Amino acid sequence: MSGLFITFEGGEGAGKTTQARLLAERLAAEGRRVVSVHEPGGTPLGEYIRGWVKSQSAPLTPEAELLLFAAARAELVQRVIRPALAEGAVVIADRYADSTTVYQGCARGLPADRVQAANDAATDGVSPDLTFLLDAPPDAGMRRVRIQTSFDEAGQVEPIPRAEESGKRRFEELGLAFHRKVREGYLALAQANPNRWVALDATQPLEVVQAQVWERAAAGGSA
Amino acid sequence: MSGLFITFEGGEGAGKTTQARLLAERLAAEGRRVVSVHEPGGTPLGEYIRGWVKSQSAPLTPEAELLLFAAARAELVQRVIRPALAEGAVVIADRYADSTTVYQGCARGLPADRVQAANDAATDGVSPDLTFLLDAPPDAGMRRVRIQTSFDEAGQVEPIPRAEESGKRRFEELGLAFHRKVREGYLALAQANPNRWVALDATQPLEVVQAQVWERAAAGGSA
Repeated sequence: MSGLFITFEGGEGAGKTTQARLLAERLAAEGRRVVSVHEPGGTPLGEYIRGWVKSQSAPLTPEAELLLFAAARAELVQRVIRPALAEGAVVIADRYADSTTVYQGCARGLPADRVQAANDAATDGVSPDLTFLLDAPPDAGMRRVRIQTSFDEAGQVEPIPRAEESGKRRFEELGLAFHRKVREGYLALAQANPNRWVALDATQPLEVVQAQVWERAAAGGSA
Repeated sequence: MSGLFITFEGGEGAGKTTQARLLAERLAAEGRRVVSVHEPGGTPLGEYIRGWVKSQSAPLTPEAELLLFAAARAELVQRVIRPALAEGAVVIADRYADSTTVYQGCARGLPADRVQAANDAATDGVSPDLTFLLDAPPDAGMRRVRIQTSFDEAGQVEPIPRAEESGKRRFEELGLAFHRKVREGYLALAQANPNRWVALDATQPLEVVQAQVWERAAAGGSA
């Protein structure tokens, strides 16, 4: 018996956490064993790194950021994800290696081979069976998140100056350019691998997206 | 003006920390600006990771360990080592990327290409000008260190069971095999690149080793 690995990807504010939770609840209600993960937490090392992220306002160097979150992911893969899949569980991840490819690679501009190497070391061959891209135009996504947050918990730093440092106008312009790169990066990944990726319009009502997720996850579960 | 980057490598208990300190003191006495580093410390992230290492008894997965210490090294390179070298300082490091090559690669058996990728990401091309290998037979080195320490601060985990779990005999046998691989790994690196490496017999009296270090470091500084 082997499990099913489902990931949710997309920009901030697109509803990944909510859709991951709704899917986990429905699968559990149908009797599946479900393991939900949200990087970098889920292991002692991951929680420790989460503590670092929450306590810091200054961003890390891009290389350190890449490696730090890869370390947390490596622990999560070896200690949680791989064992759960081996026992037949459905593992649902709110962000995974594709976030690194898009944020650190496409948007922040680290060399693609270096990002790939970090992902390879972290995932050790454990890849999602199914990935939902919750796609939304950056301005729509940005309205849902607190604009002053420069870190999210997955360590996806937005390299944008504080509003008080450089004025709201510049802040929004830089933020928007960054989020456009993120969106383009995700769409390119989804187009390149349609067997794994399902791109959904995240501006639709929550219930509509939820139904589309369920339709594909249920099919994935029986495949 | 560009600086000089000197690293000290070798097994535990070979006297790296002492020799690094003595060299730093003498260079400083001669008027050189010296920056001493000891991984994973030296940056806020590195100190945070050092806190993790000190608080944990259970080892990380090898992949997570590799990536975690690479993250600390990346911060150290970008925030401390590269700027110091650019200002003409002598940077002296008690362990650097070669420790990762030897401990995680040669001794723990992680794939060489993965170890190399982590080192490349961490060092970003910042390599030592001169590396001292303090070489000693494993049994001599092991007598100097507390045998129950399974971590050193550079994250070089020794995958040996606790003495109370499996008996002193098995403990020492496993430890010795591991340390032999470490020694062989270092000697192979030194032989492969004699322009950078200087292998010294660390069983000699401290003052003799100190004089040999000084002779080569002084030559390196004027080269």
